[in-house]
Parts: sequence; structure tokens; C-alpha cells
Amino acid sequence: MATRVRAPIEGLHEGLCTASEATAHYLTRVLRLGVGAAFVAFDPETSREADASIVAISGKVQLEIQGLRPARVVARRAVTFVQGLAKGDKCDAVVRDATELGVTHVIIAACARSVVQLQGPRRDARVERWLRIAREAARQCGRSDPPRVELLPWDDAMTRTAPDARRFCLHVRESAPLGPALLAALEDENAPVAFAAGPEGGLTAEEIAFASDQGWQLVSLGDLVLRTETAAAAVLGALRVFEGG
Amino acid sequence: MATRVRAPIEGLHEGLCTASEATAHYLTRVLRLGVGAAFVAFDPETSREADASIVAISGKVQLEIQGLRPARVVARRAVTFVQGLAKGDKCDAVVRDATELGVTHVIIAACARSVVQLQGPRRDARVERWLRIAREAARQCGRSDPPRVELLPWDDAMTRTAPDARRFCLHVRESAPLGPALLAALEDENAPVAFAAGPEGGLTAEEIAFASDQGWQLVSLGDLVLRTETAAAAVLGALRVFEGG
Repeated sequence: MATRVRAPIEGLHEGLCTASEATAHYLTRVLRLGVGAAFVAFDPETSREADASIVAISGKVQLEIQGLRPARVVARRAVTFVQGLAKGDKCDAVVRDATELGVTHVIIAACARSVVQLQGPRRDARVERWLRIAREAARQCGRSDPPRVELLPWDDAMTRTAPDARRFCLHVRESAPLGPALLAALEDENAPVAFAAGPEGGLTAEEIAFASDQGWQLVSLGDLVLRTETAAAAVLGALRVFEGG
Repeated sequence: MATRVRAPIEGLHEGLCTASEATAHYLTRVLRLGVGAAFVAFDPETSREADASIVAISGKVQLEIQGLRPARVVARRAVTFVQGLAKGDKCDAVVRDATELGVTHVIIAACARSVVQLQGPRRDARVERWLRIAREAARQCGRSDPPRVELLPWDDAMTRTAPDARRFCLHVRESAPLGPALLAALEDENAPVAFAAGPEGGLTAEEIAFASDQGWQLVSLGDLVLRTETAAAAVLGALRVFEGG
């Protein structure tokens, strides 16, 4: 079975269309596809996809889109991951891993111990970057529904997550293990779940207390100290493995 | 609770000793500790540790080691992770994540589709590098027992893993999900477990068949295509979460 080429097309509709610059570059420069080449186009906003082909490459890249259908592979469950805003490219890695592991909503949360402060144009550029990473990771892993990504203050992140979700906040000093609580939560196939983790410096006592007051359950991943990116992949990996594959 | 400084000392014994160059650099240059500073010394080979202090920094760094005790945090279960030799720094990331997530034995396996071929001095240098990464990750996450790391051909990796271990080989096209089988395996608190994953190009039909013949169970992580590093962190994260934290 050959891996099928997949490319995101916003506002996907049946008929002829012009590829965006990024998609044109990907199809004709990165993959070196020519006129007549077939691929699967997916709309990141609507989780629909369609067979597509390249019909012209002179100047703009023209595509022909066949009938739309629901995307074959989308996330099965609403999963939110709240990641405390961390330094360097740690949040990039979390967005990428979260997308691969089936998260539907990533919230990067500005915390008291977040070293980076993002405001104005830098803030917008960073969110735009995370959205690009999510879209690209979705394409690579075969999902047609990249997660929403937004940047919020910690308190907003704690209150805006669906209150019917089973919500777990990772806390190194709290002794209740995540495993049994997560397994219980997964028994309901449709129940949304949410996880939250602090920045590399950890959450403050106030942030922990606020989460707890809002109904987040404080849970531990055990004795070893995990890096921010490893904690995210570990928790979401557990979700993935125990969702039934 | 302040985080305690930890440093590896090979051949740890009670009394006075001279720090290795790497440990001396870490204590006095990276952390800028001076005479009298206290830390926890651990022996990566024997999983024992001891309170220690710096007694002199003129020329060599001299240490005083107190009575040895079993290390407080070590892996609870024998866990092997076999990773197909992958390109770039992917294997570095797998060694680091595996150490944080409690693996006791990492085998990097040379596979038919491994793009890199390591032989002679380059091979030795690479294994040495992985051992350093494991030791450093153990120090950072608080383990006193970094995993063994070795490089073997795939077939040797498949046959040398303890046959009493529950062994799972990740295979994207195989439909049995990992979750239920892993939960069953973890019910025995002392049973060793082992996981194997191919390089980024995947395992060949022959490699899969060989693993299966040797008693490895072929399992899937679901529909989405995971990068090599993500797959390792996901599987080991599931192990960690369901070990009980």
C-alpha cells in the first residue's frame, strides 16, 4: 500500500481551484509532482477530504477537486491539552506531539513562572507559528483535523475547558497516580478529557489551587522528573494506547 | 523542598576521592559550587548513592563521600526498548526519553531500512554518545540507574531480550491494539516488558516475521502515523502512567 500524498486546502470545494503558495510549493517543489498527479486534499476547518489532481502548473498551480467526503481519519474524542508557556521551542514540540497523538484543542497558557512573555505582534506571530506546526503535523500523521491552538492566561485556560470533561492537572508533588483515574474516564467513549501541565519552572501554589477549585484533579506521573515535552508525550501516549489503538 | 544536586561517580566508595573531569566540570563550572558544597553522588553501575561534599578545588576536585545506601529512585521493572537505528538525532531523543520514562535497557537495532550505517570508530563514538545522554538524563530526572545502551543487529536484538519478558513489536499495519495486552502484562508487578520499533522507514516483512517467530507480539498504536521519537515516548508514557505513578 503506497502512502498517499495529502495536502491541506482551505475552503475545499468540488471543481477547479488555485493552490495556495504553500500547498503549490509542497506539491510541485518538495514532492516534484507534475500535471496529472493525484493526491488527497483535506480541509483543516471542516474535516472533509476529496480526491484531487494537478491540472496545470504554468504560473499558479491549478487543481481539480472531486466530490467531498468526510475525512477518513479524525480524532475520535475531544481532547484538550493545556501546556504552560515554556522557553525556546518546547511548545513547538508539544503542539507537534499533541497533534500526532490526537489532541483536538491545544491551549498554551501564560503562567506566573513562564519565562517568556508574549504580547502584541510577537504573540500573534507565535500563535500563527503553532497553527502552522499543527497543520503540518496533521498532514504528516494522516489527520484531516488539526487541533485548534490558542494562547490564554492560566486562569482562563482552567475555566474555559468544557466542564463536562474529565480534567487532570499534572502536579509532581501530588500523590494520586494518573493511571486509574484516566482508565475510568476513558470508559465513556464520548466523554471529553483534558490535561494541563505547567511550564518548566512548574506551577505556583496559587495556580494549582485555582485549577483544583475549578474541578481539575491533581495527578502525578511518579517519582522521576520529566522534561516538559516528555510529560506531554507520555500523558498523551497513554491516552492513545488505552483508547484502543 | 530544594532540588538536590546529583552527580554520577563511577566506582563510588566511602571516603575521599578525586572527581572525574566531567563531574568536576559540572560541579564547579556549571553549578559554580565551592568547597563545602553538599550534593548526592550516585554510582550509575551499582544503583547506590551517598551524601557527598567538595573538600578541595585546587587542581583536581576532591570529594568526601559518606556511607553508601541503595539509591532512592531506581526503575521498578526491567524494561527494554529496541529502537531501529534512525537518522540524525532521533536515537538521541529516544535514549533521553527512554531514560526519563524508566527504561532499563535500550537497544539501538541496525535494520535493513536504517539509512545510517555505523561501523568501527564511528560506531564506538555513537554508542559512547548515547551512554553519555543516558547518564545525563538519569541525573536530570533523578534516577540513579541509567539504562544500559547497546547497538546490535535487529535479529540479535530480537533474540537477546529476556524470553520471559512480555514483548511487543510496534507495527503500523497490524491491527491488535497495544493497550489491553500491555495492561494484562503489567498485572504481574515483576514481569519484565520489552518494546520494539523500527527505523523511520519501517521494518521489512522479514524483520517483522523474525520478531513474530521469536515470540514478539505485533501491536498497533492506531490510525495516525507517528514519528519515531513520538512513538517511543507514547508507548513508554503509557507504561509509566499505568505502572501506577
